[in-house]
Amino acid sequence: MSRPKPMSGFPEFLPAERMVELHALRILTSTFELHGFAPIETRAVEPMEQLARKGEIDKEIYVVRRLQGLEGDNTDGDDLGLHFDLTVPFARYVLENAGHLVFPFRRYQVQKVWRGERPQEGRYREFVQADIDIVGQGALAGHHDVEIPLVALDAFEKLHVDLGIPPVVLHVNNRKLSEGFYRGLGIEDTAAVLQRVDKYDKVGPDVVTALLVEEAGLSAAQAQRCVALAEIATPDESFVDQVRALGVEHPMLDEGLEALAAVVRVAERQVPGRMLADMKIARGLDYYTGTVYETVLQGSERMGSVASGGRYDALASDGKVTFPGVGYSFGVTRLLAPILGRGELTSSRSVPTCVLVAVDNEDARERALRTADLLRRRGIPTEVAPKADKFGKQIRYADRRGIPFVWFGAGEHDEVKDIRSGEQVGADPQAWTPPAEDLFPRTVRG
Amino acid sequence: MSRPKPMSGFPEFLPAERMVELHALRILTSTFELHGFAPIETRAVEPMEQLARKGEIDKEIYVVRRLQGLEGDNTDGDDLGLHFDLTVPFARYVLENAGHLVFPFRRYQVQKVWRGERPQEGRYREFVQADIDIVGQGALAGHHDVEIPLVALDAFEKLHVDLGIPPVVLHVNNRKLSEGFYRGLGIEDTAAVLQRVDKYDKVGPDVVTALLVEEAGLSAAQAQRCVALAEIATPDESFVDQVRALGVEHPMLDEGLEALAAVVRVAERQVPGRMLADMKIARGLDYYTGTVYETVLQGSERMGSVASGGRYDALASDGKVTFPGVGYSFGVTRLLAPILGRGELTSSRSVPTCVLVAVDNEDARERALRTADLLRRRGIPTEVAPKADKFGKQIRYADRRGIPFVWFGAGEHDEVKDIRSGEQVGADPQAWTPPAEDLFPRTVRG
Repeated sequence: MSRPKPMSGFPEFLPAERMVELHALRILTSTFELHGFAPIETRAVEPMEQLARKGEIDKEIYVVRRLQGLEGDNTDGDDLGLHFDLTVPFARYVLENAGHLVFPFRRYQVQKVWRGERPQEGRYREFVQADIDIVGQGALAGHHDVEIPLVALDAFEKLHVDLGIPPVVLHVNNRKLSEGFYRGLGIEDTAAVLQRVDKYDKVGPDVVTALLVEEAGLSAAQAQRCVALAEIATPDESFVDQVRALGVEHPMLDEGLEALAAVVRVAERQVPGRMLADMKIARGLDYYTGTVYETVLQGSERMGSVASGGRYDALASDGKVTFPGVGYSFGVTRLLAPILGRGELTSSRSVPTCVLVAVDNEDARERALRTADLLRRRGIPTEVAPKADKFGKQIRYADRRGIPFVWFGAGEHDEVKDIRSGEQVGADPQAWTPPAEDLFPRTVRG
Repeated sequence: MSRPKPMSGFPEFLPAERMVELHALRILTSTFELHGFAPIETRAVEPMEQLARKGEIDKEIYVVRRLQGLEGDNTDGDDLGLHFDLTVPFARYVLENAGHLVFPFRRYQVQKVWRGERPQEGRYREFVQADIDIVGQGALAGHHDVEIPLVALDAFEKLHVDLGIPPVVLHVNNRKLSEGFYRGLGIEDTAAVLQRVDKYDKVGPDVVTALLVEEAGLSAAQAQRCVALAEIATPDESFVDQVRALGVEHPMLDEGLEALAAVVRVAERQVPGRMLADMKIARGLDYYTGTVYETVLQGSERMGSVASGGRYDALASDGKVTFPGVGYSFGVTRLLAPILGRGELTSSRSVPTCVLVAVDNEDARERALRTADLLRRRGIPTEVAPKADKFGKQIRYADRRGIPFVWFGAGEHDEVKDIRSGEQVGADPQAWTPPAEDLFPRTVRG
């Protein structure tokens, strides 16, 4: 095999980078668990007819077939596809297991998803998502719409404190607010308006106005008011008065304003400065029906949203019972791959090993194994040197990997050297403990 | 959507079962890290021509194509397939990143793999493997062949102590021993013999003897001695004399005997009773070139091997440099899915939540949020009740999920009730701590 080339859109990390990703995932999953979300995983494949229901995204699906099936013996029945998000599989899981779950059901799920999009900056063909959802059976209270962003902001605060990821602002809107506003203007194809408003950040107000007139068939006056709505963004409830001042009325608008105000009111008190009621958030083609969320890193607004979600009236339905839900998805790869790619975060060493036990000569290897075992039993990650060699070479082995300690004279005249300071002291493998900050690799600035 | 049915061969777990799987994975990965193995992940897909190199397994590959590609616009070039193990992708990863890795390179990798086999008991189409490998550049010392099973046995010992998984016996052989023995008998197609000897456990000595004569073209005398070799199994070095007593001589046999004796000698001292030198271990069609491992659960020998591996002279080669390695793969799903399916292990509760903060009325919800936040800041998994309701209903909400504590009067007259004993005491959310055994869900006998 000649040296293979990386495959565009399928990011892979070196061990020091993977350790940072694992650190971030531990922060996310431990936060989810602190908030009572239970873990599940779903299979990577779903029947194609389930995946293709969602509209335009079907062009991006990876189809999966057995090689045998392709060769004519397709006894497996339906075609399969790799899931492109964790929501469609979760909906299927809830229906399949409804009898074994207790509702409201709170779950988290961290898995890879696949999309056959053309790879470009910030877009991947294989990437990790970390999702939380709360799903009710028949009904789900509105206060979960504020709970979800509070969990998300708790997780982002820890990513900021522990990893130095920039702070975020969580932008929130409500589909009923936008749709009610459009209906109050006499617009019928509200989805067409939402899709164009969704481009606001990329193309600006003038182009959106033009698109609304040219493509969505709005009058200039209608388009201007839709853009005026999209420009409203406040960290508190004052958006309500600003929307009212545009002079549009509709019962669905009232409903949306009230629901969004309730979310912002609580967030302003619980996490001041972290949430923005932002009327231009539309979530494009997604099937949300109420509150919608997007999340931007402060100082990296150009990246767009790194985590998003919303409320859906019917995540799933079996014909009799409907399961409404509210959820949120962290784009883990989208968030981390650029930071790791630029080398801004890395690990303090490239291996978990804290101590390398040196081997004087091959006859002494078994003594080294026993010393290593004693250290490991007390939770200290330890390797035995692969080769009996001069001390200098063993220190170099440790140094190249960032291993801080080398243990000499295992089982005979035990001594441990901190290879950074050069300090070497007598030590008992049943008692010696490294400084806490050296025990495991730490995430550090690159 | 009507209620979907499970897909055969793609096991999925309920949250309480997934928590057990996560517990097992934490035991494995923390053991790997204690032994200095660094984490990596590789993408799920590889070019088909890489996957198909391995021989008969190619019929089991899942081919992956973009839906667009299938419709004629296949601008992506080569076909992709889902990886069917973690060794082929790791070999490619080592070649691709050799310039950034330090050798010997020790990595662990826990990921799903896919095989389009007909599903049957103990066989899955999607399953989790946990692999460790040590890879050298140009050369790799023989003592790593004993290090790998020591790591594996350390992990299995913890699975036994912490989860009650049965103890294991790790069966070890050496391909050079078998191949040298066959060559010493004048047999040329040694692979044909290995493949038939590999069936020994399933079909027994008489059928193997017959197969060797009828299919592999051996004489009756040759076949009998091959079966006599396969019947040798000792927990110590005494196998050497037993093999010698069969009167076959070949330099490759000597080499294999010496290497296997070195492995067993160390294991007998370090982990007495856990390893068996077993001459019938062949590892079928796998491309091992020296030491080979299989692992059986005591009392569940009928399941076959749940974890296996071996030494390969050339994991990968770029034409100039060869990378020899030794590795081992835990069949995580193969080990756990039957245990979880029979309900033998489960979690002490179906959610991570330790405390449910009750809500007296919806106006008190924000006080409950703050109390929950105080508890979470001290690492206590906490949920806020989804509905202001009578106390009995809130207790029932907790009870159905196995949440041990319900917190009443949040922020006003705080009290916490252990719903198992009924004991209710005044408590400060900034100081109260649950018993350590209640903090997180525990793995328990079902």
